[in-house]
Amino acid sequence: MKANYIGDLKKWEEEFKFFVEVTVRFSETDMYGHLNNTVPFVYFEYARIEFMKHIGFTNFSAEGKNTISVVADLQCDFLQQVYFDETLRIYVKAARIGNSSIDIHYLAKNINDEPVFTGRGTIVQIDKSSGKAIPWDEKEILILQEK
Amino acid sequence: MKANYIGDLKKWEEEFKFFVEVTVRFSETDMYGHLNNTVPFVYFEYARIEFMKHIGFTNFSAEGKNTISVVADLQCDFLQQVYFDETLRIYVKAARIGNSSIDIHYLAKNINDEPVFTGRGTIVQIDKSSGKAIPWDEKEILILQEK
Amino acid sequence: MKANYIGDLKKWEEEFKFFVEVTVRFSETDMYGHLNNTVPFVYFEYARIEFMKHIGFTNFSAEGKNTISVVADLQCDFLQQVYFDETLRIYVKAARIGNSSIDIHYLAKNINDEPVFTGRGTIVQIDKSSGKAIPWDEKEILILQEK
Amino acid sequence: MKANYIGDLKKWEEEFKFFVEVTVRFSETDMYGHLNNTVPFVYFEYARIEFMKHIGFTNFSAEGKNTISVVADLQCDFLQQVYFDETLRIYVKAARIGNSSIDIHYLAKNINDEPVFTGRGTIVQIDKSSGKAIPWDEKEILILQEK
Repeated sequence: MKANYIGDLKKWEEEFKFFVEVTVRFSETDMYGHLNNTVPFVYFEYARIEFMKHIGFTNFSAEGKNTISVVADLQCDFLQQVYFDETLRIYVKAARIGNSSIDIHYLAKNINDEPVFTGRGTIVQIDKSSGKAIPWDEKEILILQEK
Repeated sequence: MKANYIGDLKKWEEEFKFFVEVTVRFSETDMYGHLNNTVPFVYFEYARIEFMKHIGFTNFSAEGKNTISVVADLQCDFLQQVYFDETLRIYVKAARIGNSSIDIHYLAKNINDEPVFTGRGTIVQIDKSSGKAIPWDEKEILILQEK
Repeated sequence: MKANYIGDLKKWEEEFKFFVEVTVRFSETDMYGHLNNTVPFVYFEYARIEFMKHIGFTNFSAEGKNTISVVADLQCDFLQQVYFDETLRIYVKAARIGNSSIDIHYLAKNINDEPVFTGRGTIVQIDKSSGKAIPWDEKEILILQEK
Repeated sequence: MKANYIGDLKKWEEEFKFFVEVTVRFSETDMYGHLNNTVPFVYFEYARIEFMKHIGFTNFSAEGKNTISVVADLQCDFLQQVYFDETLRIYVKAARIGNSSIDIHYLAKNINDEPVFTGRGTIVQIDKSSGKAIPWDEKEILILQEK
């Protein structure tokens, strides 16, 4: 069951370079005894922001800027159950750079290097007051393309 | 920007009959001042379980059963920003019934009856110990089809 | 094991008039099968804001105001385990009105009218930029005292 | 404004030896722009479990044991506002060892070594089915006392 945003699986996996580590908190489990399925999106958000900081893209600060980057869509495909206290690597990459948007892909692996969930989502830069899409400037595109 | 799981939009919307109401909690906002983008999945889970109870499908109890229904994938498309204290209707429907799975669709509307986000996700019934997919029985399929 | 903020238990209970209802979400349980112990504080926040709206005290909007009401401390005493899908009444009252603060008490009861957890916490009105405590004005004190 | 569970502040602080680090996630902020006040309890839980693992006390596994350690009460005193992306050290210590309970204290410091919030809470060991308090055995008391 391969997600439709994954073309050649091996190639898709190899393109990931950046990752952050998270350890599943007790409060992130549910009565089924595993990681609640709403939590990967929390990990994605954390990983995405760390990735953005890493490539020097944005400080994600809400102050003194007219634009913010909002999430246009999000998806997650669950491959294996994840349990309390497992440490996961959340890999992130910029998959497609649009005019005012960017497609981010995610891959979570457990300590056995097995994929446990994958995901993707589009981020759009918008004007804070009008809500309209604002194109990336040249410098931003360069930063995104290099990574 | 119509999500790929929506065919004819009008028809897709009209098929929703069941909904639950949620009011955005302060703790569900983030420093951008709006509903954090990880929270719709919490609403989806709540709405899905209420829907399942409504059609008499399962009690979602973990006790005394060898099977549990787990989430295979989840996605959300964000159409409008949502703010603190807004009351949303989260509509749910069974969109496609598989052998051992079911595709659930979601539509969230604000008090002006405007769609604010949509979503979908597949639920799979698995054996608790082996993790293998377990087909619905006849009675379960009847329940799912009627609704 | 009576919490130290409760004097005469019967009298303390009787003083509660306002309540909100919450139903325990699946994502709010943990692998022990019960409500995770961090969630009552989410309920307290929700109940407190509804209480404040109810007595006409504040809109809790961050815009156009120099003051915000922040939480100075919070506590919760757990009396009974709470499970998925239980509906609780979260009672709220203003227990002590200070110069620039207010002590809020909480009582959560299950559908059998049994207390499942209690709590309290002080809210302080501060200047948004300086962080200094700002006394309530006369009108605000009147609103708080009447309730 | 010193919390009532802190005697001599300097001595209280010096007794902390163990800590974990957490970095404030975007999803943990709220529309006031700071760490939502329900989140420190999530950090406390995480820090407490790491502390317990560190002193070799328990694996906090729900399987194959008749007892679980539940939270009897929790409190948090907020000293300074905390913001997105701040890294905090959450210090933990065993403050008082009872027959079947233990009092855990918490101290959170920012990167300037300033206390930002403190807390405490009692953990009680109970029988999973009856809910009754179960005394620590000798080995457990020794582990708790040494630390």
